[in-house]
Amino acid sequence: MTPKRKARLALSILCEPGDPRLPGLLAAHTPVELVEAISADRRLGADPWPSSWTHRAQSLDHRLAKAERLADAAGLRWVVPGDRGWPDGLQDLDHVEPLHGATGAPLGLWVRGTGTLADVSATSVAVVGARDCTPYGAESASEIAADAAAAGVTVVSGAAFGIDASAHRGALAMGRATVAVLACDAATAYPRAHAALLSRIAESGLIVSEQPPGQVPTKARFLSRNRLIAGLAGGTVVVEARRRSGSLNTLHWADRLGRPTMAVPGPVTSQQSGGTHQAVRDGKAVLVTGGPDVLSELAGIGAAEPESVATSSTEYDQLPPPARRALDALTWRGATSARDVATAADLAPHDVAKALALLARHGLAERSTDGWLLVRRADLA
Amino acid sequence: MTPKRKARLALSILCEPGDPRLPGLLAAHTPVELVEAISADRRLGADPWPSSWTHRAQSLDHRLAKAERLADAAGLRWVVPGDRGWPDGLQDLDHVEPLHGATGAPLGLWVRGTGTLADVSATSVAVVGARDCTPYGAESASEIAADAAAAGVTVVSGAAFGIDASAHRGALAMGRATVAVLACDAATAYPRAHAALLSRIAESGLIVSEQPPGQVPTKARFLSRNRLIAGLAGGTVVVEARRRSGSLNTLHWADRLGRPTMAVPGPVTSQQSGGTHQAVRDGKAVLVTGGPDVLSELAGIGAAEPESVATSSTEYDQLPPPARRALDALTWRGATSARDVATAADLAPHDVAKALALLARHGLAERSTDGWLLVRRADLA
Repeated sequence: MTPKRKARLALSILCEPGDPRLPGLLAAHTPVELVEAISADRRLGADPWPSSWTHRAQSLDHRLAKAERLADAAGLRWVVPGDRGWPDGLQDLDHVEPLHGATGAPLGLWVRGTGTLADVSATSVAVVGARDCTPYGAESASEIAADAAAAGVTVVSGAAFGIDASAHRGALAMGRATVAVLACDAATAYPRAHAALLSRIAESGLIVSEQPPGQVPTKARFLSRNRLIAGLAGGTVVVEARRRSGSLNTLHWADRLGRPTMAVPGPVTSQQSGGTHQAVRDGKAVLVTGGPDVLSELAGIGAAEPESVATSSTEYDQLPPPARRALDALTWRGATSARDVATAADLAPHDVAKALALLARHGLAERSTDGWLLVRRADLA
Repeated sequence: MTPKRKARLALSILCEPGDPRLPGLLAAHTPVELVEAISADRRLGADPWPSSWTHRAQSLDHRLAKAERLADAAGLRWVVPGDRGWPDGLQDLDHVEPLHGATGAPLGLWVRGTGTLADVSATSVAVVGARDCTPYGAESASEIAADAAAAGVTVVSGAAFGIDASAHRGALAMGRATVAVLACDAATAYPRAHAALLSRIAESGLIVSEQPPGQVPTKARFLSRNRLIAGLAGGTVVVEARRRSGSLNTLHWADRLGRPTMAVPGPVTSQQSGGTHQAVRDGKAVLVTGGPDVLSELAGIGAAEPESVATSSTEYDQLPPPARRALDALTWRGATSARDVATAADLAPHDVAKALALLARHGLAERSTDGWLLVRRADLA
């Protein structure tokens, strides 16, 4: 293991992965510098190191040797930023406000199974929800996962009872790979009753954890693990969740990451749908009724009229309505300010920014010093 | 019957109620002038009268006498604009674009039962939906209607099988009045199987129709009747509706009237919830999970965080979030343009207009020649 890779592993042993201080420290110092400074208890800023970090540093060599031994035994691979297999989307987490005391891209990820994490998760959706789900929720999760899998979208989830397991099974039944992100280390089958399921997941897909080998799941680790599910996936669907349930936590991460957030409705008489209904009411998630809706949201065509999706023939038709209106407000001749686009397209400033960014990504619009210019009309392409 | 009241009745016999030409004609001429001109086939504008109108005018006296005889026999009362019992909210329909070939405030309404229409419908909600509803939908409709009734909100519906009947029954079971708006005349029990239900409705509440006595329900009349349900009610809830179902028509009327539009979710596996889910996805309705959500929407506190509703102590807290943000953007010192409010409050122009109108209705803001001024801070009231 190169010193740089080993330093990231050492940091994940010294600090709790997801510690919100890490993004700032890593922006200012290399992992090697940080490990050396913590081990020597030498300040790099005004603040002293947390005592838990310097305490663990006293037995760092022993802890590193143990982690590497367990990793070898379980066939775990250590993937770090800069590796070909590193999913770039995870770095978005470095710019997200902490939630329940955690944030930031992981220092590295332990993976087990088949394939390269970046490739497997390149087109993906998180399907998560209640452990104590209903048969309706389990069925909905499996159906959505199967539809996603059939469309070549990898399902990312935890490996918990209930919705998580149903989502994996729905995708596996279609013969597609899934990604399970664990709150314990990647070598441990947790929950134990899912040992066989986890083995099946690893046969075609990946089991992932930011925890060094030998670590147990804790409540805090479940919550910080959820940021990795949201960060690895292109969008997040919550199938069932009670109000104020932890299952909504992954949705909040996806929301903070600006990725599509989706919730499946259910009977209003079902407490397991209370949280998904609330998320829709609060504007934290878009209502989705199944795989086709999920795939539409992931493709950014969102709540377009079903007619327009069905009959669409041009790139213009495939754009979400706000982007279409923003595009209509632009000209080749001269730049239009985002504010004037907002007025012309009847969009809030935040939505205009999103719409213009989308148009730029599609090569339809570009920003100049004075505002935004039309590059090409999507409907004439 | 005064000539003016009789002229409105005559017009409702000559023209199909809901004819989209009526609002313009009534804005330019009195009902008496119109009846005289149609009867004499004398043009008042460039266009000739529709032949169906002048044809019916040939037997107008006979038709009037028949309608009055049937009305007397059934105990119907004819209520017209300007009467104390006339619900002013109906006049909003005069400014709504036609939907399925109908629009406009009714010429008058035939009512049967107990109470004054304006009083009974002053605080009201329409609860409508599929005829072929599921037991889940029937139960949801009854529960919402019961909660509304218990809170003193009158349930308005259409007396059809399924959701309509369940809504009426839920409110009646709480000992509260409901309003049934029929597509046939107000004397006829339609559907026949609901004769007993309609009698019970009339004991404490009202049966209403814009059709002259003796008229049968037609498909077009069901659709134009829906505008009266939406126009009488302070908001509309659709409990179950298939995609592209006629049950969504009332929701569209409420949407065009700018009244709260609400939809109840259900299992995604239920076709009867396909239309309500689509309405939420299309932004045509807010998801509501029961009576408390409905009452919140009617009170204009919409999708506020449940916490803030529970702990709200000021008028400011009761405002919907866009209105709060718009209020925050205003000052006493000088007028702010709606466009600047939009930017400051991060609202689309359409939402700004709605928010400012709401603030004006609450006496919190007022329009000046240069823009909008703060009148008082709701949180200091």
